[in-house]
Amino acid sequence: MTRYQALADDIEASITAGVLRAGDKLPSVRHTSERRGVSASTVFQAYYLLEARGLVRARERSGYFVAARPRGTLPQPTQPSAPAGGSFAVVDVSERVFEVLESAMDRDVVPLGSAFPSPQLFPLRRLGQCLAQAAREADPRAAIDDLTPGSLALRRQIARRALADGMALSPPDLVITNGALEALNLCLSAVTRPGGAVVIESPCFYGALQALERMGLSAIEVPTHPGEGMDLAALETALQRHKPQAIWLMTSFQNPLGCLMPEARKKALVELATRHCVPLIEDDVYGELYFGEHRPPPAKAFDTEGWVLHCASFSKSLAPGWRIGWAAPGRFARAVARQKLTTTLATNAPTQQALARYLESGGVDRHLRRLRQTLALHRDRMADAIARHFPEGTQATRPEGGYFMWVQLPQRCDALALHRQALAHGISVAPGPIFSASQAFGHCLRLNYGHPFDESMQAALATLGQLARQCISPRP
Amino acid sequence: MTRYQALADDIEASITAGVLRAGDKLPSVRHTSERRGVSASTVFQAYYLLEARGLVRARERSGYFVAARPRGTLPQPTQPSAPAGGSFAVVDVSERVFEVLESAMDRDVVPLGSAFPSPQLFPLRRLGQCLAQAAREADPRAAIDDLTPGSLALRRQIARRALADGMALSPPDLVITNGALEALNLCLSAVTRPGGAVVIESPCFYGALQALERMGLSAIEVPTHPGEGMDLAALETALQRHKPQAIWLMTSFQNPLGCLMPEARKKALVELATRHCVPLIEDDVYGELYFGEHRPPPAKAFDTEGWVLHCASFSKSLAPGWRIGWAAPGRFARAVARQKLTTTLATNAPTQQALARYLESGGVDRHLRRLRQTLALHRDRMADAIARHFPEGTQATRPEGGYFMWVQLPQRCDALALHRQALAHGISVAPGPIFSASQAFGHCLRLNYGHPFDESMQAALATLGQLARQCISPRP
Repeated sequence: MTRYQALADDIEASITAGVLRAGDKLPSVRHTSERRGVSASTVFQAYYLLEARGLVRARERSGYFVAARPRGTLPQPTQPSAPAGGSFAVVDVSERVFEVLESAMDRDVVPLGSAFPSPQLFPLRRLGQCLAQAAREADPRAAIDDLTPGSLALRRQIARRALADGMALSPPDLVITNGALEALNLCLSAVTRPGGAVVIESPCFYGALQALERMGLSAIEVPTHPGEGMDLAALETALQRHKPQAIWLMTSFQNPLGCLMPEARKKALVELATRHCVPLIEDDVYGELYFGEHRPPPAKAFDTEGWVLHCASFSKSLAPGWRIGWAAPGRFARAVARQKLTTTLATNAPTQQALARYLESGGVDRHLRRLRQTLALHRDRMADAIARHFPEGTQATRPEGGYFMWVQLPQRCDALALHRQALAHGISVAPGPIFSASQAFGHCLRLNYGHPFDESMQAALATLGQLARQCISPRP
Repeated sequence: MTRYQALADDIEASITAGVLRAGDKLPSVRHTSERRGVSASTVFQAYYLLEARGLVRARERSGYFVAARPRGTLPQPTQPSAPAGGSFAVVDVSERVFEVLESAMDRDVVPLGSAFPSPQLFPLRRLGQCLAQAAREADPRAAIDDLTPGSLALRRQIARRALADGMALSPPDLVITNGALEALNLCLSAVTRPGGAVVIESPCFYGALQALERMGLSAIEVPTHPGEGMDLAALETALQRHKPQAIWLMTSFQNPLGCLMPEARKKALVELATRHCVPLIEDDVYGELYFGEHRPPPAKAFDTEGWVLHCASFSKSLAPGWRIGWAAPGRFARAVARQKLTTTLATNAPTQQALARYLESGGVDRHLRRLRQTLALHRDRMADAIARHFPEGTQATRPEGGYFMWVQLPQRCDALALHRQALAHGISVAPGPIFSASQAFGHCLRLNYGHPFDESMQAALATLGQLARQCISPRP
């Protein structure tokens, strides 16, 4: 542990113990620096980390103060909002999803319903330089060499990072794709046949619902806990009862709940899939956006038999709009590569080379540290704003990573109506029903905290809270 | 018509009339320049054009001579090699296609079987500069703005060029895709349901066979004439008999035949599809590679009711490896965009911007002129080599564009065996059966003339001819 982390932890302990209370001023940087025998910059880093954790706030020209709302005043949901036990549904959700997504793309709308973080959080300048270099120095033959499975230099970099995260991968295990969405779709079509059934989470990423709908697959919805992820007992029942062709889920910072499945459960999940010989498609696009000390290992880290098809991308963590993702499909690697060859053939060659260069050059970890701190800070600001503005009885998850918060409004609230009203006020939200084949979660919202917390964002959250209050007040 | 074209035409007329014969020396540039009252550079251009047409050849330090083999000494096939009338087949061809494609990717193999032209034919330097500029100057919000249907600036450039080619398109009609292969696949899945049937050409692009196989669709193979494209009478019978969900074909410089459907037939084809309300998926990736005076209009140019889904890309004409294509899906535009949103979401943003810049900057027509001249010259060299080395009875198409020649060997020749033998000699070829759901064309080859005609290419064609001769000699 570094010095600044140790210092931050000590101060956090004082706040938790009540030694420092809401509104208290932290000792000045110079004072702390002298007393602890560390540099001023270490103290600054510690205070910044505490700010990222939502425990203190800076006031201009006055110093740092213990935050008014230490974590916990906004209740977290503790129960899944969906019925227990796998429910079986034909999927028909696309129209509504498109309507919501299109509304979130307008530049004049506050993007609380957006699926993307702000592009301004990314090292676009440095990436642009790498792309410019790659474009100037490209070997003409690379257009052929970088055909599927993709650039060897890039696959080497991805394998190197995967190794550090507990996954023993090498370049031949990887297929480069047009973003994670293509990886997920290729994996799904490599392991299923039309008419089959697939286990998904409830609530789940709507992209899974759309994929199932398009491929003529049925959804088996398994309840997913806002704190710990998919209910494994319910999953086992579903595996026995429905003989699904695949399981599709997110194990870290799930979209839309933000939940992180504990390591032991990930391990049990992989064992379950392996025992039943069911391919496990793991969507791990938010894994790099952890707020804790270490990257949580994905389920793939526990995969000894090759049943896990791990999918990830750079779109959420490094290079939005570049559409570079990958699959590590285990025993299905060849099948997935062939799906790719017959659908989109290959992935843009110069961009693959540019990303390999960027990763080789070594700036990525510094960028990621900064990105995680920013998102952690935004999470706390979002929680504060919801606690302040939203009606009594509102609950919200406290994600340990990613940029989505799941908000459960009082039961009487209609999230689809709220979505329409908010849009009329220039605010987009993602209503709960788009995350479910059975259109559940009618009183829930997914809110995106990956955008700057400027005045218009603050005002939008206040307006949204007011609209939610009106939702539940008795009609005149 | 320009001066140099007029001059070239006059000389070609003299050759056709026998006034100038094989081996005759053309008048010197100075002489012709004085006699015709044109500049020396005009004469050079005319001679170059005649060389591109295969009518004359330059000998170093001696001038230009009428070519030894004026066109016509290599017989062209006049009949389709497939059975007449639509034959119905379940598709199961992918394994063999992959085997052939993989063999053509090895850098040490002479790529006569490759699907790609040489990357060295493209303005990679200038494209790299555009990509570098786009990367440096990109608006961070472009990652969101350029989501499907794609960059407005690029769609505007594509629409502008389409207009010049007789297609009245505007940006909302277009969806940018990861190459034409994605465009074709999205169109196919937007208009078909598993279990249906689709009309394809015989022989046809194997990508169509793979798509049908993957989506669980049956193939109705309609004979395609090496000179004029799909047999429309057989198509009409197939439409009546099998009620297909779509027609998929290439109307210009068809892969693998190289044939160009005449305008009147294209018009009749669109009328037929419209009358039967059958979506017509038109693969037009080689349309820009014409050797005549003008780009032949695609079938889309005759589409008044929106039944034609036109697909094209920059991969063959401008930027290999960049994976930028598009669809103009007529009445299915919205459905195709939604297929894209749920499968690969979007296309690489910086590359779209770079292509828009390149097209705005205006160098593309000069590049295309040079590319067409080079390919036309290669076509004639390929025809010469085949006439010189291949066994008696060999026929080959004389494509008016693109970079594929279809070679019909004597019936006793087994193209699959020849493919394996050639590979053992470091030469790849594309054997006929990979272009047919019913594995027809067992004595045919597709040869790629899009690579430099250097010594190893010349030697490879001689070796290939010898192997083909051995194929048909009586066994000892």
